[in-house]
Amino acid sequence: MEHALGPGAEFDAVRAFVDRWGALAEGIGDDAAVLDVPRGERLVVSTDVSVENVHFRRGWLTAREIGARATTGALSDLAAMGAAPLGIVVALVVPHAWRAELEALAEGIGDAVRLAGTRIVGGDLSGGDTLSITVTVLGAAPQPVARSGARAGDELFVTGLLGGPLRALRALERGETPDALDRTRFARPVARLREGRWLAGRGVTAMIDVSDGLAADLRHVAAASGVRLRVDARRVPRVAGVSVRDALASGEEYELACCAPPGAVDAAAFERELGTPLTRVGTVEAAGASSGDVVLDDDASEGVRVDLPQGHDHFSI
Amino acid sequence: MEHALGPGAEFDAVRAFVDRWGALAEGIGDDAAVLDVPRGERLVVSTDVSVENVHFRRGWLTAREIGARATTGALSDLAAMGAAPLGIVVALVVPHAWRAELEALAEGIGDAVRLAGTRIVGGDLSGGDTLSITVTVLGAAPQPVARSGARAGDELFVTGLLGGPLRALRALERGETPDALDRTRFARPVARLREGRWLAGRGVTAMIDVSDGLAADLRHVAAASGVRLRVDARRVPRVAGVSVRDALASGEEYELACCAPPGAVDAAAFERELGTPLTRVGTVEAAGASSGDVVLDDDASEGVRVDLPQGHDHFSI
Repeated sequence: MEHALGPGAEFDAVRAFVDRWGALAEGIGDDAAVLDVPRGERLVVSTDVSVENVHFRRGWLTAREIGARATTGALSDLAAMGAAPLGIVVALVVPHAWRAELEALAEGIGDAVRLAGTRIVGGDLSGGDTLSITVTVLGAAPQPVARSGARAGDELFVTGLLGGPLRALRALERGETPDALDRTRFARPVARLREGRWLAGRGVTAMIDVSDGLAADLRHVAAASGVRLRVDARRVPRVAGVSVRDALASGEEYELACCAPPGAVDAAAFERELGTPLTRVGTVEAAGASSGDVVLDDDASEGVRVDLPQGHDHFSI
Repeated sequence: MEHALGPGAEFDAVRAFVDRWGALAEGIGDDAAVLDVPRGERLVVSTDVSVENVHFRRGWLTAREIGARATTGALSDLAAMGAAPLGIVVALVVPHAWRAELEALAEGIGDAVRLAGTRIVGGDLSGGDTLSITVTVLGAAPQPVARSGARAGDELFVTGLLGGPLRALRALERGETPDALDRTRFARPVARLREGRWLAGRGVTAMIDVSDGLAADLRHVAAASGVRLRVDARRVPRVAGVSVRDALASGEEYELACCAPPGAVDAAAFERELGTPLTRVGTVEAAGASSGDVVLDDDASEGVRVDLPQGHDHFSI
């Protein structure tokens, strides 16, 4: 913290945040934060809003988890670009009923920032009727990876094991206690920042984070790249007991999906170096008549045609 | 627009925005935007949230004005740092009741972005109970100006004429129609970006934008710089008919206040080149016993001691 803050409730609240964050907060108190992009690298920026009763429910998560999750979701966009974080800014709208939870929210934001090895460089705070957390992440990469570079012949990969968050969500919706590991994946996701940089360093042609569900997110890649993605259902990496369909539909995984020229990515080396599974799940094909398609090769052992699930749509709620 | 977007109501809404923005929107559709900071310059970042019934009321402003005003308020923080804008990202929470106004909001955001000579490089969109607009601005400056550099002996300046927004606000609160010029200053403020860069280029030691009211904002400068600011009440530049007290209290002016070594800033040259008044309003003094003070020299013709007004406090509402 460089500067003293002025008087007023907003400043008191900001002070409480900054105290809670300690060395994680830098330069708060000016009109704007000042950062440096490493020479030869490009600036990568993304903004993500999390709203109560749209993106989370109070009964399902602690305030600390809500803060961490909102921040991780934003940081995950940097991971998907293969960028290293430079810092984040946070805008909070906090209703009266949430005032007592402000420090817990701050702790959660701090948890995610610490885990990502970055810092909080600025923010804004307002009253309002609904809790919302808007996290804007700033990162840098020598060559940021877009969604649009996938080419026919590329291999398609996904990190981690899918399905935990959806199964946790379903349990919560039924009023049941989720399996502990599923709940951790739902409540405490991890942004795959090191993994994203590792993959970017191997020349992946397109990358995205799994936020809407793998099937929906791959559709974005296929559309942006003008290709068709063929996924082998048997290879979709999933948590034990989760169906292929649910693994493809599970959102807010914050795993990474990417395309890479044949042989560019060594999945065994990835797993050895980063301790996270990397699975080849399919292949990039020329689009043919219908660009932007994702085609699923059925798993004969399940014996059913798997319709690809639609993604989440926060705006339709 | 580089990439195709996927299906869903959120994407349809984003598409409508991007269509409305035309060439003002760049690279929307990836996980993050990619920008370049000019060589030898530093990155300047600020985030600002505007919430319905906290920062604005629907009956007082059109949707287009609300979009423009939220964006201008954020861009003004770049002006205060002496930075040139590189781009903005916008996160919107839009209740059902506001759906029909989405394009007008987008138009307003576009108006402010066009006026600032910058572009919209990314965003996020969610449903929710309360309209909020979080604008994160990205800029660059060779030497960003903080609030903390004011030194005893510096001269204190302010741009523009103060008081219009407060007088418009009071009229609206009374259910009256504000004076047309006051209303324009309230509903269509301008971020002093060119002015901020001009002043930064003359070596100003501290700068802030007038968002909380000049008195409150000068207190931030005094506290950050560890100095006392002495303001000559007679010199405070104000719209005809506005009292000194109201001029000092009027918030969301988005004028700039700055400190500069004696002789560094030529107010006549500023006015000639930029067409905006620049007024010497006071002097920076050593803090003495009480650091962070702002002292007002009374205007004898008003014959009263002027208590310095407190700033706005959006968090206490």
